[in-house]
Amino acid sequence: MLPDSLTKLVEQLQKLPGIGAKSAQRLAFHILKTPREDADRLCESIRDVKERVTYCTVCNNITDADPCVYCASHSRDPRLICVVEDPQNVSVVEKTREFRGVYHVLMGVLSPLQGVGPDDLKIAGLLQRVGGGKVDEVILATSPTVEGEATALYLARLLKPLGVRVTRIAMGIPVGSDLEYADEVTMTRAMQGRSDF
Amino acid sequence: MLPDSLTKLVEQLQKLPGIGAKSAQRLAFHILKTPREDADRLCESIRDVKERVTYCTVCNNITDADPCVYCASHSRDPRLICVVEDPQNVSVVEKTREFRGVYHVLMGVLSPLQGVGPDDLKIAGLLQRVGGGKVDEVILATSPTVEGEATALYLARLLKPLGVRVTRIAMGIPVGSDLEYADEVTMTRAMQGRSDF
Repeated sequence: MLPDSLTKLVEQLQKLPGIGAKSAQRLAFHILKTPREDADRLCESIRDVKERVTYCTVCNNITDADPCVYCASHSRDPRLICVVEDPQNVSVVEKTREFRGVYHVLMGVLSPLQGVGPDDLKIAGLLQRVGGGKVDEVILATSPTVEGEATALYLARLLKPLGVRVTRIAMGIPVGSDLEYADEVTMTRAMQGRSDF
Repeated sequence: MLPDSLTKLVEQLQKLPGIGAKSAQRLAFHILKTPREDADRLCESIRDVKERVTYCTVCNNITDADPCVYCASHSRDPRLICVVEDPQNVSVVEKTREFRGVYHVLMGVLSPLQGVGPDDLKIAGLLQRVGGGKVDEVILATSPTVEGEATALYLARLLKPLGVRVTRIAMGIPVGSDLEYADEVTMTRAMQGRSDF
């Protein structure tokens, strides 16, 4: 029988993604042992995030200031838009240090099974940005999942009539991984997407 | 570039055990998306744990009230003490629903490499409880690790002269696991500890 307050903390922690019953208990015991100031700092950080972080009115990325650093930057090319599912994905593209355009965050993917339709995503804003005629290319960087693919297809159909170049990120074998572990669908895409040496 | 407050939350979350950079980011984004009340409840739980949970003055188990439920219970046998490393381990023994005795939490194990000596553990209290002559058996339920074994051996040498029965939990193949995955030391202990059918 754990103390009530500890049981409650375990319950709260279990609501976090990827935290099961055992991890939650381990985390709770860690918090119990940790110095008071550390626990306070964690709480403060949680509160700060809820209070300070908002969404960019241009691209829907998370930000402290509106518009976000990418939309406000003069060194980024506003004629090149990379469309991603979630704010997390912006970091993934940024880590390449290759992309110098701007972003558009959809805030999800089309998923009929989960009741997510086109009206639930930030598609209208994207069409508006592209429709202004100031965009050359839209890179569809949704995940190569069933939902991500469907979303990319749906967007491509809406965007192409606007006279913009629409591209899709490449699918293939992850760099550094062994062919042995590649599934047949990925391998097929890798073959189809082959390029000349 | 993540918003500052989000970066700080990621840093705080990374201090938790078993939470790496990627998990911390995923948790932070989850907290960002979660309703405000849920985030507040998590913070409250953290605060409550730090404020309310104390240690039982008899057995050192974590508790809301002193002495703890096990030490205060009339249905538990105070003549049988199970010695464990940490408060977490009390839950593990309790889950068996077999043990009807009481506990003694050492608050660690002997570990010369990490500078943990006998004086850093709650050994004096255990000797006092046993020395009173009101204890029949002490079950040493420290983990079968190098440190746990050393601690059990050390305690056994101190306890036996007090005229009490000192026992050690069995080591062997975990129930439900395949022999194929058993290491040789465990297998040796499983053979040595064999019992008649």
